Amino acid sequence: MNRGLRAGARQLFEQAASGDRGALARLLSLVEGDGEAGGELGGITFRQAGNAYSVGFTGAPGSGKSTLTSALITDIRGRLGLPVAVLAVDPSSPVTGGAILGDRVRMQEHALDDAVFIRSMASRGHLGGLAAAVPEAVRLLDATGWPLVIVETVGVGQVEVEVAVTCDTVVVVVNPGWGDAVQANKAGLLEVADVLAINKADRPGVRETARDLRNMLELSGTLEWTPPIISTVASSGDGVPELWDAIASHREYLEQSGELDRRRAQRAGEEALRIAEARFAKALGEAAASPEGVEVLAALEARGIDPDQAAARLVEEVAHEIAGRSNPPLR
Amino acid sequence: MNRGLRAGARQLFEQAASGDRGALARLLSLVEGDGEAGGELGGITFRQAGNAYSVGFTGAPGSGKSTLTSALITDIRGRLGLPVAVLAVDPSSPVTGGAILGDRVRMQEHALDDAVFIRSMASRGHLGGLAAAVPEAVRLLDATGWPLVIVETVGVGQVEVEVAVTCDTVVVVVNPGWGDAVQANKAGLLEVADVLAINKADRPGVRETARDLRNMLELSGTLEWTPPIISTVASSGDGVPELWDAIASHREYLEQSGELDRRRAQRAGEEALRIAEARFAKALGEAAASPEGVEVLAALEARGIDPDQAAARLVEEVAHEIAGRSNPPLR
Repeated sequence: MNRGLRAGARQLFEQAASGDRGALARLLSLVEGDGEAGGELGGITFRQAGNAYSVGFTGAPGSGKSTLTSALITDIRGRLGLPVAVLAVDPSSPVTGGAILGDRVRMQEHALDDAVFIRSMASRGHLGGLAAAVPEAVRLLDATGWPLVIVETVGVGQVEVEVAVTCDTVVVVVNPGWGDAVQANKAGLLEVADVLAINKADRPGVRETARDLRNMLELSGTLEWTPPIISTVASSGDGVPELWDAIASHREYLEQSGELDRRRAQRAGEEALRIAEARFAKALGEAAASPEGVEVLAALEARGIDPDQAAARLVEEVAHEIAGRSNPPLR
Repeated sequence: MNRGLRAGARQLFEQAASGDRGALARLLSLVEGDGEAGGELGGITFRQAGNAYSVGFTGAPGSGKSTLTSALITDIRGRLGLPVAVLAVDPSSPVTGGAILGDRVRMQEHALDDAVFIRSMASRGHLGGLAAAVPEAVRLLDATGWPLVIVETVGVGQVEVEVAVTCDTVVVVVNPGWGDAVQANKAGLLEVADVLAINKADRPGVRETARDLRNMLELSGTLEWTPPIISTVASSGDGVPELWDAIASHREYLEQSGELDRRRAQRAGEEALRIAEARFAKALGEAAASPEGVEVLAALEARGIDPDQAAARLVEEVAHEIAGRSNPPLR
């Protein structure tokens, strides 16, 4: 990245911090699209961030996460007057963006509220993928003055869970009905849940689902924090204030126990490792396309070497390349 | 890995190749559990493999993949007498293994057939995960004389798709009914489908689903191979011979067009890259735990450096470490 672009990012950042939503959107595109540029911007935002609280929403498609998020925004705006930024993240459909569009329509009611910022994020070539781009985006919103950032993911894949756990509080949304709690457990969602919402609680089976969830939470061992289970009807707003209060309680627990700092430090470490992994993946891709790499892959194709041996040669190529252009570490 | 263990793997391999199912199961555990040991074994199997054909089954949970696989085995055994090995892969539930157990029960009918080998695979610490372990497992089955390997994945996550595309022919299973075809498209399944099965075709909506699938396949551009759409009722066996014939046609197309060799070479290259990425990920984990890494992460925690800078320092640590203990590449 050249100096001109870097200066551009700094200028955009100052505009975004003073409330320019267009500048903020452009910076988010930078984060979303390009890990290198995002990395440069990261230096600016990292020093300014640390004041926002982030809440991640995950759960099966159709569980009503978007409607619930929208109802929560209404509650937060009405009761607390707090500005809210929302990232709607869809790792599964980088191309069509269908679900994202639906989300945006559902959140349309906040379109005229200047203290609400809603942005969709999909995989657009960020080095390291969405799981790496989202924490950067949250930090950017944090650094530009948004005190509360909600991250909503579509679906329940591995990437969705990885995205959700980059937030301070993770809310898992299920619906009443047999098997839903089991599915949530199977997908590893209960493991990451700080708060559980049984949404669409005007349908039958709430009590049984709550019981199943409680049993499964007990089986997963003693916890310092027992995830509260809140029944909500997002469409009518029932239970939504209670959901927000449960999130606020979790935040209080994290802050008072010192767990918040510990978690954030751990997440920063994991983020660094993920960025480092992405660097190596990129370097490996370049090595595979180099004359030496092409030779290695040709030997593999001719069955002269096996994938393991080819991998070993590519690893050495990359290590020598990076070691050659950096100073040896000071020991 | 020491010489003793290596010799053990070779001996186990010879036993497995002469029909010892216990030896085969132990080798598969080796592949599943440990990338390093699997890598050593890989050298043995790679030279012996290349004769088996692999078919991957994927689709939403509940679409009937297991029952369809089981019906297909019955058809293959009855009509062709061909031995069949099945890998039932569940990346989503490494712990509970619930779905896998269900799959095994459904495939129980083949338990007494010596020419059918069924094995469940989950993530058990393989370096690089299931997406790397499955091709190794397929190669092992190939090298020990199984001419046909079916890989069945649970669910439709990113890992499931990655696993399915390591096979020669990919069968995507959907069910009749509105939206199912759309979901398959959204999850990126249609992109990887060589053959489409509309299972549970005794339910209404088959024609509409077939039409939707056809439209979506057309939208995805001109293809040399148009994935045939086969209606099946796995529970009764209806359409199952036609499904096998469609798979056989695809194989014929791949072989006659030279596409099979091209695909396999490409997959071997991707596999090598994936193994290389896993090596770096492992080395990064070790670097993060080293005194230098601990220092870097402490600086990050104290906000003296940002995640990007921490990543850069870890990358250099690893590169110097690997470059230091290997010879420079010959250029």
